[in-house]
Amino acid sequence: MVNQKYYGYGTAPSIIRELFAYGLEQAKVLGKDKVYDYSLGNPSIPAPAKVNETIKKLVEEESSILLHGYSMAPGFEGAREAIAANLRERFTTNAQANQIFMTCGCAPALVSVACALTVKPEDNFVVIAPYFPEYNVFFTAGGGKVKVVAADVPDFQINLEALEATVDENSVAVVINSPNNPSGVVYTKETLEKIGAFLKQKEAEYGHPIYIVADEPYRELVYGDAKVTFIPEVYDNTIVCYSWSKSLSLPGERIGYVYVPEKCEDGKALYAAIAGAAREIGSVCPPTLIQRVVQECVGCAPDLVAYDENRNDLYNSLTAMGYECAKPDGAFYLFMKAPNGDDMAFSEAAKLEENILIVPGTGFGCPGYLRLAYCVSNQMIWNSMPGFKRLIKKYGK
Amino acid sequence: MVNQKYYGYGTAPSIIRELFAYGLEQAKVLGKDKVYDYSLGNPSIPAPAKVNETIKKLVEEESSILLHGYSMAPGFEGAREAIAANLRERFTTNAQANQIFMTCGCAPALVSVACALTVKPEDNFVVIAPYFPEYNVFFTAGGGKVKVVAADVPDFQINLEALEATVDENSVAVVINSPNNPSGVVYTKETLEKIGAFLKQKEAEYGHPIYIVADEPYRELVYGDAKVTFIPEVYDNTIVCYSWSKSLSLPGERIGYVYVPEKCEDGKALYAAIAGAAREIGSVCPPTLIQRVVQECVGCAPDLVAYDENRNDLYNSLTAMGYECAKPDGAFYLFMKAPNGDDMAFSEAAKLEENILIVPGTGFGCPGYLRLAYCVSNQMIWNSMPGFKRLIKKYGK
Repeated sequence: MVNQKYYGYGTAPSIIRELFAYGLEQAKVLGKDKVYDYSLGNPSIPAPAKVNETIKKLVEEESSILLHGYSMAPGFEGAREAIAANLRERFTTNAQANQIFMTCGCAPALVSVACALTVKPEDNFVVIAPYFPEYNVFFTAGGGKVKVVAADVPDFQINLEALEATVDENSVAVVINSPNNPSGVVYTKETLEKIGAFLKQKEAEYGHPIYIVADEPYRELVYGDAKVTFIPEVYDNTIVCYSWSKSLSLPGERIGYVYVPEKCEDGKALYAAIAGAAREIGSVCPPTLIQRVVQECVGCAPDLVAYDENRNDLYNSLTAMGYECAKPDGAFYLFMKAPNGDDMAFSEAAKLEENILIVPGTGFGCPGYLRLAYCVSNQMIWNSMPGFKRLIKKYGK
Repeated sequence: MVNQKYYGYGTAPSIIRELFAYGLEQAKVLGKDKVYDYSLGNPSIPAPAKVNETIKKLVEEESSILLHGYSMAPGFEGAREAIAANLRERFTTNAQANQIFMTCGCAPALVSVACALTVKPEDNFVVIAPYFPEYNVFFTAGGGKVKVVAADVPDFQINLEALEATVDENSVAVVINSPNNPSGVVYTKETLEKIGAFLKQKEAEYGHPIYIVADEPYRELVYGDAKVTFIPEVYDNTIVCYSWSKSLSLPGERIGYVYVPEKCEDGKALYAAIAGAAREIGSVCPPTLIQRVVQECVGCAPDLVAYDENRNDLYNSLTAMGYECAKPDGAFYLFMKAPNGDDMAFSEAAKLEENILIVPGTGFGCPGYLRLAYCVSNQMIWNSMPGFKRLIKKYGK
């Protein structure tokens, strides 16, 4: 007598969770330093000091009633103004507070946008493989469909021909996640401009907007010379979904936003519909203490030195052994080709033979590859190298 | 090109918000002490000192990575164990951690339960007038319907005959909110036992469970000799939705839970479906810092002295003037009959003539009555009395 779709969602096995749980059990038996867990994307650098200082200051100085009270549904005016000002400083945009809608993390932001854009059951959201598996849940929440563009192997940019073959008259949006989970790739400005030009042409052909949903939790996590393009600069009909989960190492505190730029077609109606959808899913008035924190800390940059060191050590060591990896310019993921061509089998072998926990790409829509989350200790990376060496000797061609 | 249902939700006028906004504007003109705002249910007593002490202690002593990191979707084991233990201490229940699912406040708890229980479009949720207006949004989120049981005037218990006339073969749950928003009434054990017996009979007749959804944000806000019945003690198929918004004065921090007792029919499948629905709406991993706070503060009781004083002063003064009010045993609301019989007109007159902001009962499914939220300063209550006196002289019969 319960809804079977939701029962399925609630009982579906998660290979990431299973790997993580296996790691915890093995760590009890073998010791924590004998398990090499690359499974989870939980930040391993602490929040900037200002975050915890701001929490303490607010708790000490602000009235408890105001601090922990309701905010209006779109969020505190001050927080939204600080975010809009920060966007104006950094990008070519005239972002205003009333275009920002605060959410309890990025997940309800994506769900609200999906619900707001879905009008009929045939409507579809185009996602680019490899992609965050929860897109299948979030973007169908409004009753629409997800269509997948095959991965652009081996560069993991976006294959324009494959995109052109996927977008159709029922496409309401293309979801772009850059820096990308799981590939760690940053889409080039050139890639995004091409997509923008293509979508503009399709909008004219079909006579309705096709939005880009820019899912940007990793926007600030970028290394070396790579530059993350702010997509509203290259395509007008872009809706931005942001989260501080990774940039301020606050994944548990559930704070993010949707930004609907003025240039967006039907922008005001769209903002209202997003607010309405957030209301239905109960994502109203995001955590107030943390709204105040991001208001103060919106200009804080994460200290990426540790991630960058991990990235270089992991990428250089693995490629030197013969592993093929996508160029990891952003986020904290490395995407590696299974040396035996079979990601599921290789993940299982790495787990059972070497206690190395890496996630098969199949769940991300990209079989044959594996995701390594390098938000780990640098020592763990070095300790895992002999195992990786034995694996490629045994399973490599 | 946006979803019209959600556009409607996002643009629907809210009389509560409008009254509140009017009050802010008038306060600028007349001074804050000349506006008597009874519109909002935002707690006016601070969180217990232990809440803010715990926040500071956690920020100082706990690793930032752990403190602000993801929790598993159902919430921290420690928090869920503390909640289950607290329930076992206080009530006749064998609550266990794995029956508790933490949520980002009570709103996504109710939405998740609604989605989990809705199997077909005819399924309905029975709500008892007067009721929280957002029930119309939350309980239809899974595609089902809301059916309303007319108010049991003037006691605001539950009219069993009206309930019997409303429950049908498509009823999947009856929603019970006690202490009640907006009436402030606590349903008696006798009322609840009668409903339990009736539902048990209907379950046998229709051959499927009819759950009670106990919406309990006001459970701890009860005065005098009144006692809030823990509904699982009188009816097996009860699902409890709880929030600390009012009991710990943390409405902005978005922390609550769903409890599915072991005795619930299909309890394990139901729990899984609730978890699955929470996943779809993006209500995963509730705010971690605040989960840790409620783990420490689950035994804290709110300091109800101020609310109780307001309750007595307001009730005694208004009834002495001739207003008819429901007996306010819980929450922080007083429900008053419009002296002219027209709640909309009386609210407007009170606003325009006396700067007294009180919410018409129409939106709560109970025309002819008005809600006064007495989570305000005691001084404001006294200051508003001359206005109430002039209003009843002018509009009373």
